[in-house]
Order: sequence, then structure tokens, then C-alpha cells
Amino acid sequence: MRALVTGGAGFIGSHLVDRLLAQGHEVVVFDNLSSGRTEFLAQHAGNPRLSILHADLLDLGAITRAIVGVDAVWHLAANPDIRYGMEHTDWDLKQNAVATYNVLEAMRKAGCKRIAFASTSTIYGERVAVPTPEDAAPVLPISLYGASKLAGEAYVSAFVGTFGLQAWIFRFANIIGPRGTHGVIVDFVEKLKKDRTRLEVLGDGRQSKSYLMVDELVDAMLLVVDRAKEPINVYNLGSSDALEVRRIAELVLDRTGQRGARIAYTGGARGWAGDVPRMLLDTTAVNRLGWKAKRTSEEAVREAVEAIVAERW
Amino acid sequence: MRALVTGGAGFIGSHLVDRLLAQGHEVVVFDNLSSGRTEFLAQHAGNPRLSILHADLLDLGAITRAIVGVDAVWHLAANPDIRYGMEHTDWDLKQNAVATYNVLEAMRKAGCKRIAFASTSTIYGERVAVPTPEDAAPVLPISLYGASKLAGEAYVSAFVGTFGLQAWIFRFANIIGPRGTHGVIVDFVEKLKKDRTRLEVLGDGRQSKSYLMVDELVDAMLLVVDRAKEPINVYNLGSSDALEVRRIAELVLDRTGQRGARIAYTGGARGWAGDVPRMLLDTTAVNRLGWKAKRTSEEAVREAVEAIVAERW
Repeated sequence: MRALVTGGAGFIGSHLVDRLLAQGHEVVVFDNLSSGRTEFLAQHAGNPRLSILHADLLDLGAITRAIVGVDAVWHLAANPDIRYGMEHTDWDLKQNAVATYNVLEAMRKAGCKRIAFASTSTIYGERVAVPTPEDAAPVLPISLYGASKLAGEAYVSAFVGTFGLQAWIFRFANIIGPRGTHGVIVDFVEKLKKDRTRLEVLGDGRQSKSYLMVDELVDAMLLVVDRAKEPINVYNLGSSDALEVRRIAELVLDRTGQRGARIAYTGGARGWAGDVPRMLLDTTAVNRLGWKAKRTSEEAVREAVEAIVAERW
Repeated sequence: MRALVTGGAGFIGSHLVDRLLAQGHEVVVFDNLSSGRTEFLAQHAGNPRLSILHADLLDLGAITRAIVGVDAVWHLAANPDIRYGMEHTDWDLKQNAVATYNVLEAMRKAGCKRIAFASTSTIYGERVAVPTPEDAAPVLPISLYGASKLAGEAYVSAFVGTFGLQAWIFRFANIIGPRGTHGVIVDFVEKLKKDRTRLEVLGDGRQSKSYLMVDELVDAMLLVVDRAKEPINVYNLGSSDALEVRRIAELVLDRTGQRGARIAYTGGARGWAGDVPRMLLDTTAVNRLGWKAKRTSEEAVREAVEAIVAERW
């Protein structure tokens, strides 16, 4: 099978590419390298089944040409910085919503029928039950990132309904692990590198979220695409429990040997405007298909902290 | 109060403008006149409380300048032709999703806090219960029009969550009445004008949908904005029953005096790819606020056919 992975040089994308190549597939990576890095794919140098296109999804011609002859698209490219959208309010719209439309339109033109799309728990907003099942309502995102991903889902769904594509939509919890380029653990490590005496934590530290290691996420995505056969298949992917931010701060201080640093909370229930302070996904649907997270959120965070400290400290 | 109505020269928009002016408000109409017509506002010629801007929502500068000093925005502008999006797949994305983002961004810049947004029953897709309540799930639109409106809703929600706007989202059934520019009744009348011997009906004629007269819709919107006080308020607006397309064809033939014309069904359960063949909204929420449709769908269609035949036949 020939697969195209948008964002394939990024954090999650590069782990997926590792696995697709190990399974014997041909892989085309399409990445603008805004947060992805070709080093993340250096282990495949010389592999004739991997090609890397340095191009942007906002270039409809480029993605259309790249998709010709592709059997399935894994659309993982996105703006990974949720908070950035507060100051640059059109960023997520372009990088996530319009880019997703371009991928779908390119598929339609090229006759490619299968798409797996990386969506997010943040589409749900904060008026839903926690743990949150896939059919939770009302779906009212409170961040521009969440809105742009819900827009992407809507377009995936419409292309399935109108043009006969088949789709797998994955709503991710917080995904962490080696090669992480953003998120709370990376933030904490980078802050400590600048000032070892003090670690600023956004909010009151009581924000509680679910964390999943990237290797387990890749397992889950491959299993769902293999086993879920509807025209459109929507699955939450996350761990079975949540962890408070203050505990992550402690684990980072422990691992970096900075137990003496002062943790300074900025206060308030949420880390930033648009942050959903409590996130835990109901993963019953994917559990029934045959996948369940092996690690707790704390176990995942411990391992991810170890990997990221090794990479960055 | 100074209100800005996008699409204010259009079918629904011009009826809303009539009412806002009658209530004594100042009204700014912002319309690119792609389907709107200044004749729809001719009755207000010389009214110093009405100003009409011929401009496009894709021009962020234009809408930002227009919103300065406005207390509330009624965002009704949209591509009204649902089927057009099948051939021009970026049309709804620009006219509905990006345009809505531009309205919200302009409001943020200008400090305008209140928005009413015209959404649609088509966001729900066809995997929900019928009659469909506001918290139906899963929300999986099957048309590009529905996707673009869901994207608009998502952005309205995110601007409420991130920047403190207050919003009223209305999910419309099929809205009909005088000045109608599109939709099934207009289509039938225009087809008959070209060929009085035969009326083509898309699908098998069994598609069953809810129809609401535009005067009742305007009543409902004004009441909800007055009475619903949450940061974000989502309401279905429709009649309490549905009507089959074949009955609408008969009513049009009756009114135009073309009872002898042959009705030719193109066949299939839906009118076009992306058409949801059964639509009836659960309006319990708006009924509780104090509004309920007075006409049945058939009564509404009869009156609308009369008005549209008078205008076009």
C-alpha cells in the first residue's frame, strides 16, 4: 500500500511513518517543516520506500500532485501550538481547516478514497460529560484550535457523504513521548533551562487531563483503520485516567534534578483562555475494537519526561 | 441599538431588516448582492436609520470598518445554493466558513460582543434522531454546505469561549416566503416557466422536510435573542411537522394552473448527493422560551407558493 502522511516529519507523524515502513508500505511524507524535522526520519535514510516532500498544504496544486497514486492518506499536519491561535486568530483556520479541505479536494480530484484524520478532544468544549464519549453533546469548542479541528471533521464528513470517501476520525487526548515538539512537558523543560530556580505553571495546577504515549496511539490508529468498516468512523483515543498539571511539574523537577525550584502558579482554573481544564475521554468504543491504553497517564508522563529530558536537557 | 445585518439585502435578511427598523433600531446592511437585491429594501428608501454597504465579507478590512460602533451583528450572509457546492467545492468554505471567521475577527477588533448566527438543520447529517433536538449526536454533516455552517458554528463558539462574545446560533429548517431567491418552490416555478408540460422533481418525491415561513422565523429569532441569556445559545427553528416534496410539486402545479403537467421523478431516496431526505427539528427548546410555529409545513408552503407565483409567474 502507498500511504501519504501529512505532517509526516512531525512528532506523531514520524512515529506513524516508522510503523508504516516497518509494515512494508510505501510512504510519502508531505510536510512544510514548520514544526516537523527531517532528523525525525533520519533513521530511514536510503530507504527506497520513503519519499519526503517539503511542501505546504495551502498549495492545493502541490498536495493534488502528491496524492496521485496514493491508496490512503493519514492527515496529521496541523498547527500544534494551541495557544498561538489566540494572538494569530487566522492561523488555525488556515493550517487546520483550509488545509484539511485542500487534502480532501486533492483526494477527490485524484480518486483517492481513504483518509485517517487527526482530530482532538478539544472539539468537545466544556459542556459535555467527563469522561466524554464520541456522541457527547453539545459540541461547542472554546478554543480556535478546537474550532478549526471541528471544521476539519465537518469537511471530512461532508466529503464522505457527498463524494464517497471512507474516513477514520481520531479525537486525541494529549499525546506525548519522544520527539515531542510542544505541549506541557516540553514547555516545562524549556522554562527550566532558562531559569532553574523557578517553574511557572499556567493556572492553579489542578487542570486534569489524559495523557497517552505516542507508540500506543500509533497502535490504536492502525488497529482502528484495520477493524472499523463504516463509511465514517469516529474514535476517541486516550488513556483511561487523567493527571493533574501540578503532578507533571513535580515529575519534571524530579527528573531534571531541580527539586529545589519553586513552582509558581499563575492562578485561575484554566491555563489560558480557551483551555478546557478537565479532559478525560471515554474510550469504550476503541476498547471494544480491541485496543486499550497500557499505561496510566502518570506512567505515560513519567516515560515521556524521561525521553524529553534526554533529548533537551 | 445599532445592528449590522450581513446578507441584509437577501431573502431572510431583508425581512429581518424590515422588523429591526420597525422596532426603531439603526440598521447597517452589509451585502455583496450575490443573491441579495437592493429592491428587497426599496420600501425603506430615505429612511435615515438604514445604511446599505455593498461589500464582501471576504474583505476583512471592509467588515472590520463596518462593525465599528455596532452593538450587535446578525450574520445571515451565506451561499444559499446548497447544490452548487458539489461542483465548486471551495465555495461554501469561503462564503460560509471563512466569511464567518472574518465577521468574528472584525467583532473582536472592534469590541462588538453580540452575534446572532444563521446556521442550518443540515449540520446534523443523517445519523441523528428525527425529530432532531439541539443536543443530537453524532453531528456528521453530509453536504459541503452543512460542513461549512458547522465550521461557522465552531468558530462562533470558540470566539465566545476565548474572547468573551455572546452568541445565538439558530439552526434553520427550510425557510420560505416572499422574496425567496432559492429552494424547492422557486426551482419548481422556474422550471415550469421554461416547460409547462413537465415538472422534474429530484429524487423519488418522498423526501420529507420541515418548512417555516420567514415572518415566523424572524419572530422566533428576535424572541430568542431577547430571552436566552447564556454566553452561547443554540436553538432549532422550524415548524412542528414535515411535508413531502411530491406535495409541494402538486401545490405549485395547482397554483400556476398547470395541473396537466407531468411530474417526472429522477428517482432515488435523496435529491442530490449530500441531501438529507428526512428533516424535522425538535423545537421543544424554543417552544419553552415562548415561540411555536403557527402554520403547519403545508400551510406555510401554500402561502409561500402563492407569494412566489405572484412574484415570478
